[in-house]
Amino acid sequence: MIRIAIVGTGNIGQAAQKAVQNAEDMELVGVYHHYEVDDAQCTMHNVDVALVCLPTRESPAFAEKMLRMGISTVDSFDIHTQIPAVRSRLMPVAQSNHAVAVISAGWDPGSDSMIRALLQVLTPEGQSYTNFGPGRSMGHTVAAKAIAGVKNALSITLPLGKGQHGRHVYIELEDGYDFEDVRNRLLADDYFAHDATEVELVDDVEQYQTTAHGVLLERTGTASGKDGQQLEFKMQIDNPSLTAQFMTGCARAAYRLQQTGRWGCYTTIELAPVDMLPGTTESNVQHLV
Amino acid sequence: MIRIAIVGTGNIGQAAQKAVQNAEDMELVGVYHHYEVDDAQCTMHNVDVALVCLPTRESPAFAEKMLRMGISTVDSFDIHTQIPAVRSRLMPVAQSNHAVAVISAGWDPGSDSMIRALLQVLTPEGQSYTNFGPGRSMGHTVAAKAIAGVKNALSITLPLGKGQHGRHVYIELEDGYDFEDVRNRLLADDYFAHDATEVELVDDVEQYQTTAHGVLLERTGTASGKDGQQLEFKMQIDNPSLTAQFMTGCARAAYRLQQTGRWGCYTTIELAPVDMLPGTTESNVQHLV
Repeated sequence: MIRIAIVGTGNIGQAAQKAVQNAEDMELVGVYHHYEVDDAQCTMHNVDVALVCLPTRESPAFAEKMLRMGISTVDSFDIHTQIPAVRSRLMPVAQSNHAVAVISAGWDPGSDSMIRALLQVLTPEGQSYTNFGPGRSMGHTVAAKAIAGVKNALSITLPLGKGQHGRHVYIELEDGYDFEDVRNRLLADDYFAHDATEVELVDDVEQYQTTAHGVLLERTGTASGKDGQQLEFKMQIDNPSLTAQFMTGCARAAYRLQQTGRWGCYTTIELAPVDMLPGTTESNVQHLV
Repeated sequence: MIRIAIVGTGNIGQAAQKAVQNAEDMELVGVYHHYEVDDAQCTMHNVDVALVCLPTRESPAFAEKMLRMGISTVDSFDIHTQIPAVRSRLMPVAQSNHAVAVISAGWDPGSDSMIRALLQVLTPEGQSYTNFGPGRSMGHTVAAKAIAGVKNALSITLPLGKGQHGRHVYIELEDGYDFEDVRNRLLADDYFAHDATEVELVDDVEQYQTTAHGVLLERTGTASGKDGQQLEFKMQIDNPSLTAQFMTGCARAAYRLQQTGRWGCYTTIELAPVDMLPGTTESNVQHLV
């Protein structure tokens, strides 16, 4: 049994509890709030892999702390441009502590990254488009909430095709503010100025909350010199559930890499799918190849 | 530069020449007919990886011969039920000769296998459906040609959704045979008796030939205990071109595994996507994760 600890009790941490409990080859040995982990170090030493379900910006430092204890980690760090730097930072820590860090193991970055890599293998030349949504954008929601006069907000990303996106923003107003004025300031914000954005005034933003999300990865390209190959990957999913489930699969890969001495920091495109699945390689080859 | 030999000059072998010539990190050092390879052994010793583009049933024995020469191999062996046996057969040969065999590296089995494994990671419980076509089925075409009175035939697989398939069979008649009689015997053949099959009498079957094919992998399943996640992967492709391009990516992985001492026989679900791509891991992490 792989002994798993979950750090964080938000949407993803809660979903991860179910994913780990449903895994036949895993034992959930602890669920921790961030601040508890120092006190819980002795317990944590019993852990094979920690699922780091913390806000993205806190993840690398926390993973580093776990790795120094010889505990392998999986996180869903999602700032694409900073992934190479996080990988470089955690690589020597993981190697010198004989542990494995799998970073950016949500769905994008994460499972989508594996698909993008595979589409690139199949068609080395071509055009790719990533279309997100419909689903909540955390970044745009935070930006909308920061506009003066906005009491509460929710920004939904709408896929318009070929990598173009629109926004649907639900807002509640603070008393004394004019909707048209707030709307114009929101539309002028750099987060919204470049996309087709619809702003809707509502009584209660929470009525429109959703954890549903989706993605369409499209690629048209050339294989063996022949143009016009068309490939696509599509998901309609519950965001925290899919993130946590994939992190759990990556925890299995981290454990196996650690056990076989392949210490270091990995992104998902560096992992073999079979290492994320329960059961033996032989049985998965028989059923899935 | 990775030194590649191509064995076989059929549809896939011809496409593979283009794929290898287009690869920035590969050198095509030879194209061989099957029967030439014994004579060409000295030349072959210069080869890092041989792309085995031979009929499926001849592939394992030929790969074994190459492996004994210390040459890594990639094939597209496609009889799903026999893949575990081929893997077990080539494993010790590859290991003892410090080489790597990647088997069943077309699109199904092959790249589809990697997708199936990933869908299983993302949703451990659920229903999967594999829908093939429209495209030529070699097996059904051969079966139709074997019916008495059939001069030439072509069987196209039609996807009807949720893993169900229909067939459209074009036939030319031998002189003196009755179409209705031939049609009834074809429909009674075990290859066609279980699917909705349409038989069309034509003057020239070759007018309907195609190398186009397609697949839709569908999965509805549960992630972190939450049902209703919907995932799909779809391709519309040129069959030999995509097969050869993916084999070429797998040749890159075989080379890297051989160079780092990870000798043995692998199916595609045991490979990391990044190892199939040109360039450094670092640059692929930066652009694809």
